[in-house]
Amino acid sequence: VKIAVDAMGGDHAPDEIVRGALLYRHEGGSSDLVLVGREDAIRKLVGVSTPPGITIRDAKDVVGMDEHPATALRRRSDTSIGVATSMVKHGEADAVVSAGNTGATMAAALLVLGRIRGIDRPALCGMLPTTKGKPACLLDAGATMDADENNILQFARMASRFMEKVHGVDRPSVGLINVGEEPEKGGRMQLAAHALLEGAEDLNFYGNIEGRDVMRGITDICVTDGFTGNVLAKGMEGVVDVFVDGIRHDIFGGPLGKVAGLFALGGLAKFRSRMDYDPYVSAPLLGVAGISVVTHGRARANMMRRAIEVAERAVSTRLLDALGEGVASAA
Amino acid sequence: VKIAVDAMGGDHAPDEIVRGALLYRHEGGSSDLVLVGREDAIRKLVGVSTPPGITIRDAKDVVGMDEHPATALRRRSDTSIGVATSMVKHGEADAVVSAGNTGATMAAALLVLGRIRGIDRPALCGMLPTTKGKPACLLDAGATMDADENNILQFARMASRFMEKVHGVDRPSVGLINVGEEPEKGGRMQLAAHALLEGAEDLNFYGNIEGRDVMRGITDICVTDGFTGNVLAKGMEGVVDVFVDGIRHDIFGGPLGKVAGLFALGGLAKFRSRMDYDPYVSAPLLGVAGISVVTHGRARANMMRRAIEVAERAVSTRLLDALGEGVASAA
Repeated sequence: VKIAVDAMGGDHAPDEIVRGALLYRHEGGSSDLVLVGREDAIRKLVGVSTPPGITIRDAKDVVGMDEHPATALRRRSDTSIGVATSMVKHGEADAVVSAGNTGATMAAALLVLGRIRGIDRPALCGMLPTTKGKPACLLDAGATMDADENNILQFARMASRFMEKVHGVDRPSVGLINVGEEPEKGGRMQLAAHALLEGAEDLNFYGNIEGRDVMRGITDICVTDGFTGNVLAKGMEGVVDVFVDGIRHDIFGGPLGKVAGLFALGGLAKFRSRMDYDPYVSAPLLGVAGISVVTHGRARANMMRRAIEVAERAVSTRLLDALGEGVASAA
Repeated sequence: VKIAVDAMGGDHAPDEIVRGALLYRHEGGSSDLVLVGREDAIRKLVGVSTPPGITIRDAKDVVGMDEHPATALRRRSDTSIGVATSMVKHGEADAVVSAGNTGATMAAALLVLGRIRGIDRPALCGMLPTTKGKPACLLDAGATMDADENNILQFARMASRFMEKVHGVDRPSVGLINVGEEPEKGGRMQLAAHALLEGAEDLNFYGNIEGRDVMRGITDICVTDGFTGNVLAKGMEGVVDVFVDGIRHDIFGGPLGKVAGLFALGGLAKFRSRMDYDPYVSAPLLGVAGISVVTHGRARANMMRRAIEVAERAVSTRLLDALGEGVASAA
């Protein structure tokens, strides 16, 4: 398996991205990695002679976090994400991984790779930690704004294949995000989607779930339209930020707080490990004709290493075939 | 001012509700309160001779948290929320306050009080703490599922009047919840709503905000449709629960954690006070022809006391007139 890594994407690029690639190989990862980006910058980090299994592909340009992604990609042919995605298109790599601008990764995937035949709209997975100690797949986290009930049904099917193949979950359960548990809850779209999901015999449909159920791990998959999913994921992330900040500065910040912090080291480690989502936060964009794995913009080396592992599993378990055969043909 | 209090609504009813009413009076609250619910249960809590300013209105029935609200209200005429809301309708009270089933409070308000003439759809405020130390008004938190751009415009106007009148905020800023800051972001409805909000000269429109901006206090008002608002509010609440639980059990739970807790007492108090939303979590249902204040189902005495104060301010500042004149007539 050969994986193109966008070395220039993310808040801590290229340092942590390159470190993640080296870590992946160091920990025994067997896929060949191509680091795509400014060769001089990457070369400084990997050394003059690249380690075995790692090569560099020069790309001079980067799509910034604040740029309009599709415009940037159309105007500039030498961006790291554009080049890395083209490598997948041309069979020079089996997958692309990026911690960069999610919009740019999605735009590159759609422009360069296109959609899987029979899949109407793509969906982005937001992988979240739950109190049950297993991840939940929230989708669509922002790819398709005005999703209709048929899109939702395909999202549920794609996510089911993804959780089976890449996370080894047997018959993953699917919850429809709604304002209440009762089948008659929600707006027009949710009512129609509930009926379709309930009628789909290939799905393990649980029923409606509420916003608070996502982190409770009530279902393996939490399906919704890309607008709601994006707002929800960012809203939850905002609360996490507030609490992490509060724990750090209010609770353990002052002189007495620092003493408290020493006694709480074990507890903090326990809590942190329960909330650790490095291993699974990365996920492929579902519905595009190639494996394009999106990871968090805040990714550091360990998360990047895990993202490469996700890409590797998606390739080796033939996720794309499962999406093409199992989902597109069910329509 | 006379306020009808649904003594039977909420997780801690009637004990904490009645305690909240007594606390309100004890702290110098001048409104007369009518405790609506089972007289024998309430009598046990207030004593044989009710204190000055407090009376009891017997209502034998309660809408349960799991019941279908409108059905329950239509079938049973003697529920505490139904009777309390009817008192407002018939001029026997100026406002109703409830910590009970939000659906039942909304259904009672709509069935008994009806809408303000010229307001197309009602909206529920979710009042949230922010890191700026001031509350944000998230609406609609679940009253109107398939809101269109015209509803959103009315929601923004209603919330502006509410924040001015009840919370004394001068020219409250309005953010439209969206998936990105740029005006061209979002689905069809958000694009149309953005244009309408931008064109409304009576509003202090900030522009688009994201899910994470709600708790950052970027704007005083965060406006969205009732589906998105409900999912977002509950999703954020779910994260709060996970962290509160983690702080309590993981971080400060074990023997060393308990020692840490002693040193962290000051820090915990600081954090708790920053996140304290008792004073403002309660809000009237906007758009109905009467003041009906919804507070959190988890309300204890202090939150209930604050809810009564919110109702009092809504009455004394003539919020209903401002909604009727300022919003309905702007259409």
